[in-house]
Amino acid sequence: MTWEQVVEDKRARLEATIPSEWWIKLKPTEDSVMAYPKQSGIMTPEELSITESSAVDLVAQLASGKLTSVAVTTAFCKRAALAHQLTNCALEFFPEIALKRAKELDDTFQKTGKPVGPLHGLPISLKDQFRIKGLETSMGYAAWVGKYDTYNSVLVDLLLKAGAVFYVKTSVPQSLMVCETINNVSGRTVNPRNKNWSCGGSSGGEGAIVGFRGGIIGVGTDIGGSIRVPSAFNFLYGLRPSHGRLPYGKMANSMEGQETVHSVCGPLTHSVADMRLFVKAVLAEQPWQYDSKVIPMPWRDSEAEVIKSKIGSGGLTLGFYNCDGVVLPHPPILRGIQTVVDAMKEKGHTIVPWKPYKHDFAVNLINGIYASDGGTDVFNTLKESGEPAIPNFADLINPSLPKIDMNQLWDVHLQKWAFQSEYLEQFRAVEAELGREIDAIIAPITPTAAIRHNQFKYYGYASAINLLDYTSVVVPVTFVDKNIDKKNAEFSPLNDMDKTVQAEYDPEAYHGAPVAVQIVGRRLTEERVMAIAEEIGRLLGNEITP
Amino acid sequence: MTWEQVVEDKRARLEATIPSEWWIKLKPTEDSVMAYPKQSGIMTPEELSITESSAVDLVAQLASGKLTSVAVTTAFCKRAALAHQLTNCALEFFPEIALKRAKELDDTFQKTGKPVGPLHGLPISLKDQFRIKGLETSMGYAAWVGKYDTYNSVLVDLLLKAGAVFYVKTSVPQSLMVCETINNVSGRTVNPRNKNWSCGGSSGGEGAIVGFRGGIIGVGTDIGGSIRVPSAFNFLYGLRPSHGRLPYGKMANSMEGQETVHSVCGPLTHSVADMRLFVKAVLAEQPWQYDSKVIPMPWRDSEAEVIKSKIGSGGLTLGFYNCDGVVLPHPPILRGIQTVVDAMKEKGHTIVPWKPYKHDFAVNLINGIYASDGGTDVFNTLKESGEPAIPNFADLINPSLPKIDMNQLWDVHLQKWAFQSEYLEQFRAVEAELGREIDAIIAPITPTAAIRHNQFKYYGYASAINLLDYTSVVVPVTFVDKNIDKKNAEFSPLNDMDKTVQAEYDPEAYHGAPVAVQIVGRRLTEERVMAIAEEIGRLLGNEITP
Repeated sequence: MTWEQVVEDKRARLEATIPSEWWIKLKPTEDSVMAYPKQSGIMTPEELSITESSAVDLVAQLASGKLTSVAVTTAFCKRAALAHQLTNCALEFFPEIALKRAKELDDTFQKTGKPVGPLHGLPISLKDQFRIKGLETSMGYAAWVGKYDTYNSVLVDLLLKAGAVFYVKTSVPQSLMVCETINNVSGRTVNPRNKNWSCGGSSGGEGAIVGFRGGIIGVGTDIGGSIRVPSAFNFLYGLRPSHGRLPYGKMANSMEGQETVHSVCGPLTHSVADMRLFVKAVLAEQPWQYDSKVIPMPWRDSEAEVIKSKIGSGGLTLGFYNCDGVVLPHPPILRGIQTVVDAMKEKGHTIVPWKPYKHDFAVNLINGIYASDGGTDVFNTLKESGEPAIPNFADLINPSLPKIDMNQLWDVHLQKWAFQSEYLEQFRAVEAELGREIDAIIAPITPTAAIRHNQFKYYGYASAINLLDYTSVVVPVTFVDKNIDKKNAEFSPLNDMDKTVQAEYDPEAYHGAPVAVQIVGRRLTEERVMAIAEEIGRLLGNEITP
Repeated sequence: MTWEQVVEDKRARLEATIPSEWWIKLKPTEDSVMAYPKQSGIMTPEELSITESSAVDLVAQLASGKLTSVAVTTAFCKRAALAHQLTNCALEFFPEIALKRAKELDDTFQKTGKPVGPLHGLPISLKDQFRIKGLETSMGYAAWVGKYDTYNSVLVDLLLKAGAVFYVKTSVPQSLMVCETINNVSGRTVNPRNKNWSCGGSSGGEGAIVGFRGGIIGVGTDIGGSIRVPSAFNFLYGLRPSHGRLPYGKMANSMEGQETVHSVCGPLTHSVADMRLFVKAVLAEQPWQYDSKVIPMPWRDSEAEVIKSKIGSGGLTLGFYNCDGVVLPHPPILRGIQTVVDAMKEKGHTIVPWKPYKHDFAVNLINGIYASDGGTDVFNTLKESGEPAIPNFADLINPSLPKIDMNQLWDVHLQKWAFQSEYLEQFRAVEAELGREIDAIIAPITPTAAIRHNQFKYYGYASAINLLDYTSVVVPVTFVDKNIDKKNAEFSPLNDMDKTVQAEYDPEAYHGAPVAVQIVGRRLTEERVMAIAEEIGRLLGNEITP
């Protein structure tokens, strides 16, 4: 079979997983499909209500027997089927397996009167990198279509122990190394809020499905923004934990074994409350007993409490920047940062400018790391099937690049370590000056709101944080308003990239696009950063506090 | 200057740092120099008493004003001067700087009535990898002689904040990659208990100086046994913490930037109590604020308490092995393991055989990692001066080896991660069978007691633990007794290495040599493993419990 035939067959098989009663007969013509579930006639009012609830509410109702897992799973399977038909967000869809699992959980609950774990009966969507025994993991590579997994990823096992139900594995860009979602197997995934916008990437299928509420908690991965960008583009919260906090064992990946900058797993959710539910559930399973890279660090309530007490007294200290010195964000993003700064200042918190330290250097260094094998790993996988590279990847990693050698790599490691340690020095210096601890930094996550297709050019706002291995939580802030967010009349480009990125801004085309910021804390500060993000979301009216 | 001239000059300068009143006029002719300080006439009874005390006692007396730092520092400088003249353990010796610092600390104490930190006034010896502003770091390379540091290593800074006094930087083998201590700059360091035995390596100078009580807490590094082997050979306790627990920032190193297996810092001490004093003092300074690789994990009393309560009830569960399946230890080591097993069993603890999982694979993998740049880094440093490689290093890494390339390295990373995770699986399986948690494993650290020069061949007992990144504490057990530890009559070699190692055993030659074991816990279990090691030491009568 040619790769085109392989792909055609795969698409047909994927389509066939959707029961005919969930088929959309007449596709909506509007740019946004967000209103479709209500209008579809396919979902019952209860199913709409379930899918528009919070995970915290759902697990409470599942644990008390008010809802069955079959009901909840059916609701999400239906809405996921719609999401896929409208945004092309799935690579694997398996409602039958999901409903069987849900039934088993309901039966157990019937028998024991107890939930099996903190996520009892809750459907969770997974990026296609997660392996589930018996299912395919193509990761959007034609060469991997038809490869069936013989084991579960560690996180899959632990989520099952916690009571989760799996029903879908979502789309990724070829290579995983770009922040839009397009591959030769399933094509392009679009943003449910506007088909002309990207859903982000590489966890773009997760962004689209959770944004559309075809999922309530999605799990993605992030090596240069891949959880945070889809979160931002779909008005979601997204956690990029520091490396070693959550298990990555037995996942599929591109450039597997590259450890200079680690990819990490994390959730995309509608609230920090749901995010916390997920993280606590995983940590309660002691992932460090299964994956050697996980640090034995249980959930630390005491760390969250430090922040909560500061929130109570208006005592937070936050840095902020709206430009990293390389690329100036579009006007809506600048407004997003200012909105958060103003909201926090109003509550009496101390907000100080943060000088991004050598972010240009960081971005160059991490780009070199991404390309350190000269693209060998990805291009070999493409060669296996003969499929072409997607343009975004070919832009990023040129196959004529040389591999760096061992001693060059060691030098890169030293540069990274020195940069990270110098960054800590910046914290200490600012803290010494202020006489107080910096709790986190408010920063752009992308220079743009949810971007038009093929326009994602600058990864630096996300990737500099990966190089630092800092904890980051994306917080949805607002939407582009063409009447407020005029073109930047005073813009004077710092460099070609800056010019290119700014030129993409068009108030008309971006009207309504989600605007987000990221809240960045030092390494392994998940509890603290989540607590700050939750407070910001609450002040902005974007956080559900159950 | 030729490298020989550089070295000659360096040796003369080193010799000149010893004040003439501390010179040994007539060197002892006995194999052991352990009794020399008492006989020397150079040290006062008070100085002998100070140097034969514990760090815990000394800091208590310094903090209450019963002892001055000048008195304590003088005592250790004198004894270190003797140690160096007798074992050749120093690469840098700077009593003047130390006494100036001690005087300042005493003055501060006079003024404030308070110690500056938990190590106030305590002399600490450092392996030559530690950088101290204004001093040389040659690390035994002729090419680096005369290079003066312009900054402190992170740990140096933090120890200074805690009140420590530095007075000596100790010898290492060329390259740091071998477990004996010989280099072309300072020559060979010998074991103070017998000049025919190695002091171990690569923190061999630390082993010799602390073993001789020319130091009370020494700080070494370990990438394949380099803290633990000198501890074992000098009847000391030694901690190899897991990577990320203690700061390594701004240290000198060979193969700097190699991160597939990390070198780590740790103390060599006469007791776990002193070890704990050191680790708690460093963690209290929040090293993660200075070195990006340090995990924000303060000292956890709760972890130590888990073990203490099990000790109280005879409830520890320990695995043990006396052979890793590659090389059978010499009879004294087998007896050492049995001694510990018996002592713990007698107290009612559960001791079960542990099957070393694929240690042969682990040892091969880590040897490949050590050689992953084909020796480029070390051989380039040798070329700079023209000095030859020491035989031990040339044995280990052949300059004709090829560098591995980036994709091969990534494959090594995957093999390492899989091995580590499979090892966790072994724990879970045994624990499931026993229905209880394995607290630690009792294992050999070397196949031999303190070894004769140039005979160290097999690193696997130490290095497999480095590949796992497990926490390990060496506990001194006993001494070779030629009347008990006869040659192994039933020995049948598993392979050539096994044969070579066993053939080296000679009860007569090894009579009196220190015998140690290591207590190994999973990653980042320092508090627990130290508590177990302390209990074992206590039962054996080798632990001072203040």
